[in-house]
Amino acid sequence: MVLHYWQRDVWHSPRGIAKRRLAMGKLRDSTIEALQTILGEALLLDPAECLAYSYDNSRHQAQPDAVVLIESIEQLQSVVRICYEHRIPITARGRGTNTTGAALPINGGIVISFERMNQILAIRPGDRVAIVQPGVLNGDLQLALKPFGLFWPPDPTSAAYSSIGGNLACNAGGPRAVKYGATRDNVLAIKAINGRGELLSFGAAVTKSSTGFDLSRLLIGSEGTLALIVEATLKLTPKAHSSRALRALYQDTQSAADAVARLMAQPITPSMLEFMDGQCVQLARDAGVSIPDAGALLMIEIDGDDTFLDKAAFDIEKFAMGNGCISVDIANDVQAREQLWSARKALSPSLRSLASGKINEDVVVPVSNIPALVSGVQVIAQQQALKIVCFGHAGNGNLHINILYEKENSDQALRAKNAMHAVFELTLALGGTLSGEHGIGIAKRDFMHKALDADTLKAMQDIKQVFDPANILNPGKVLP
Amino acid sequence: MVLHYWQRDVWHSPRGIAKRRLAMGKLRDSTIEALQTILGEALLLDPAECLAYSYDNSRHQAQPDAVVLIESIEQLQSVVRICYEHRIPITARGRGTNTTGAALPINGGIVISFERMNQILAIRPGDRVAIVQPGVLNGDLQLALKPFGLFWPPDPTSAAYSSIGGNLACNAGGPRAVKYGATRDNVLAIKAINGRGELLSFGAAVTKSSTGFDLSRLLIGSEGTLALIVEATLKLTPKAHSSRALRALYQDTQSAADAVARLMAQPITPSMLEFMDGQCVQLARDAGVSIPDAGALLMIEIDGDDTFLDKAAFDIEKFAMGNGCISVDIANDVQAREQLWSARKALSPSLRSLASGKINEDVVVPVSNIPALVSGVQVIAQQQALKIVCFGHAGNGNLHINILYEKENSDQALRAKNAMHAVFELTLALGGTLSGEHGIGIAKRDFMHKALDADTLKAMQDIKQVFDPANILNPGKVLP
Repeated sequence: MVLHYWQRDVWHSPRGIAKRRLAMGKLRDSTIEALQTILGEALLLDPAECLAYSYDNSRHQAQPDAVVLIESIEQLQSVVRICYEHRIPITARGRGTNTTGAALPINGGIVISFERMNQILAIRPGDRVAIVQPGVLNGDLQLALKPFGLFWPPDPTSAAYSSIGGNLACNAGGPRAVKYGATRDNVLAIKAINGRGELLSFGAAVTKSSTGFDLSRLLIGSEGTLALIVEATLKLTPKAHSSRALRALYQDTQSAADAVARLMAQPITPSMLEFMDGQCVQLARDAGVSIPDAGALLMIEIDGDDTFLDKAAFDIEKFAMGNGCISVDIANDVQAREQLWSARKALSPSLRSLASGKINEDVVVPVSNIPALVSGVQVIAQQQALKIVCFGHAGNGNLHINILYEKENSDQALRAKNAMHAVFELTLALGGTLSGEHGIGIAKRDFMHKALDADTLKAMQDIKQVFDPANILNPGKVLP
Repeated sequence: MVLHYWQRDVWHSPRGIAKRRLAMGKLRDSTIEALQTILGEALLLDPAECLAYSYDNSRHQAQPDAVVLIESIEQLQSVVRICYEHRIPITARGRGTNTTGAALPINGGIVISFERMNQILAIRPGDRVAIVQPGVLNGDLQLALKPFGLFWPPDPTSAAYSSIGGNLACNAGGPRAVKYGATRDNVLAIKAINGRGELLSFGAAVTKSSTGFDLSRLLIGSEGTLALIVEATLKLTPKAHSSRALRALYQDTQSAADAVARLMAQPITPSMLEFMDGQCVQLARDAGVSIPDAGALLMIEIDGDDTFLDKAAFDIEKFAMGNGCISVDIANDVQAREQLWSARKALSPSLRSLASGKINEDVVVPVSNIPALVSGVQVIAQQQALKIVCFGHAGNGNLHINILYEKENSDQALRAKNAMHAVFELTLALGGTLSGEHGIGIAKRDFMHKALDADTLKAMQDIKQVFDPANILNPGKVLP
């Protein structure tokens, strides 16, 4: 089921949306003509064609007035200038895989799809950089880098079909971030067009710079609200020769979290350190995965040279063991690794089959507060009489909290919403923050005033004003 | 010799400085009273006492009207509010080790010294974070972290006596940055006071966040022009068990640079990858260091587990060798390492003895352009009839270009200035940028319009306006 913005949904008052929608208005004929002159067939106006650009993975929908299949920087500057003059909202879109509604044109206007700006402009292995257009798919870049023995670290689950522009917009992460960093840690330079149609260019193909304010990292994670990224110089990393996978089972979350703290305090940083709570383990068992009963599970990977890995796996096993540890298994080949990963793989289909509705929030807390988060979430689950399961990137303290409910049951939907609020409150009380890798979009926008104080939010709003004085770039997202 | 700002110097028209200086004016008696009420003996007004805060390592001087030995966040907010009201310039000061004049009160007003805000507020090994006040010395923090097996990566030459606040201000780096990143890569959260006296707080003790605009990294490297950093949550890294050092000699710069590119494209990222040009090698030989004649030298370090290092050192040696390589030596113990490093250690005293004046610029270029930079610099040296020697952090493409001249010879001083301009032009033409780790300050401020286009500079100026509407925070620095 798709929720329309003008229908009742768990996050938004439909009247608020409708009011804003009307205030912005539809495109005028003269504007359409001006856009057509610049764009020709790259301007889509047919509502049926535009419909394909009205969704993202938040399962919400908002219809744009037009879609632009942008092809060049100059063309985009012209389009933005027209939108600036006529106050037309612009929503940038990669491949719409984001989960927060950040790619939805909730105020109508124009969706800029970057699917045609999909060229890898350069790969320079000696400099460890790739220069790409925003429409390049993460997975396609990784394939192109393979012959050079290099990779670009961000590895969201959507990597195969999400665009690098989208990864930049929400500061995408993934399991590898624990060792190799998220998107913001792996970009050296950016070209972007601001809300006046001006081309800004910041950074260089160098890994170290103290030359003015860091606008690149300011734009990364700003979800298309400050500028439209049209080119990025990415920092590449050499791929390790080999890896080893370990699966550790624990009696309870505290024991697993203690192991996470031990693992993060020793010198071999895992290339992956994933957590599943006891309910996830049970779900995997129910799905037929052969795995002992456990209160928590860690999947650990280390990478490096083969000569090093055998010894390192032994060390890691030692740190993974301790109070409350049930077992540690090491996979020495791909097949054994797949077997160890089977519990994680069984999880997503299991979750889908359990309930028709799922709110998946990617909160993040200091690693030492993982037990408090997981046990606090179970208290919330009891209070709201809902099933909530937790898994995710333990090494970053970035857990995916999955609140399960029946969509058709309005009482359950309300309780799911209450549970989500309570999870955010808990996360902030534990010194964490709202999102580790998904971003804010519209899903968490109204909680930003709880995560940030008024003066800090005001600074963000003023920065928005600097880049986008007419408030046409993805209006209504990120900031309350 | 110390150059006073109102004296002729190589960078600035004395008239421009004098004009600005007069426009800002001296402190009024009522302002001094208001400050004294808040600060008591922490307000220094005696010119002789203030003199100690009028220098930094740029060898320039500018006398402040008062110095504040700030002790708390609340106190600083009160001081900034007074300065905001009366338009009094504020220059933040760590320990004055910066080389760009960023800590000089060139417009008079108040120097805020953070030497009393020097507490390590928390070390949390499980979370891999330390929370510090800005006045903590980098070296003191490293000592405090040692028992936990952790370190904070930035390692400028000044580490023992430079403050973390200063490291944050200029995005300090050092040799380890090639593997572990510079300051901006190693900070998770910041509290800072803007130019209106408001306390901003951004980030959390987590290594991954997609929650609004990244103000922490915007403030890092902004040299006290946007806000005064009063607390930082630092990302810590576990210290490797052991390390190996290698010294490789090459016939020429191109051969050494080719080796750098090979080393950076293979999976074992060196923990240090330092370069010295042929002139540096000759200087070391002249100083009595036993080292073969060579056109270029690389010092390479790798770190990790002992079982891994022997094999890794062998791999690294293989990648260091190649066309133009004269020799590779491996040090297996501390003594041998010291011996290999002797050439580098002899360099600084040698440089001092060669000429009374030295301009040391820390430009940065893509790694593959190191040969073009080094050979281009030698062309400039010939044109200006000056000795210029290059060494630095090859893995980051961050070279220190040392232009040597006799200070007392005004013709040489002018040629040194011309050479510096030519080095900046060359760096930018090679796709690099002005500073890798020292920052801009006043030394490179007037070149910013060459490094950045007008619209990008305008965005930075507008951001400055957001944080500091009265232009009281380190006015006249970084931006032209």
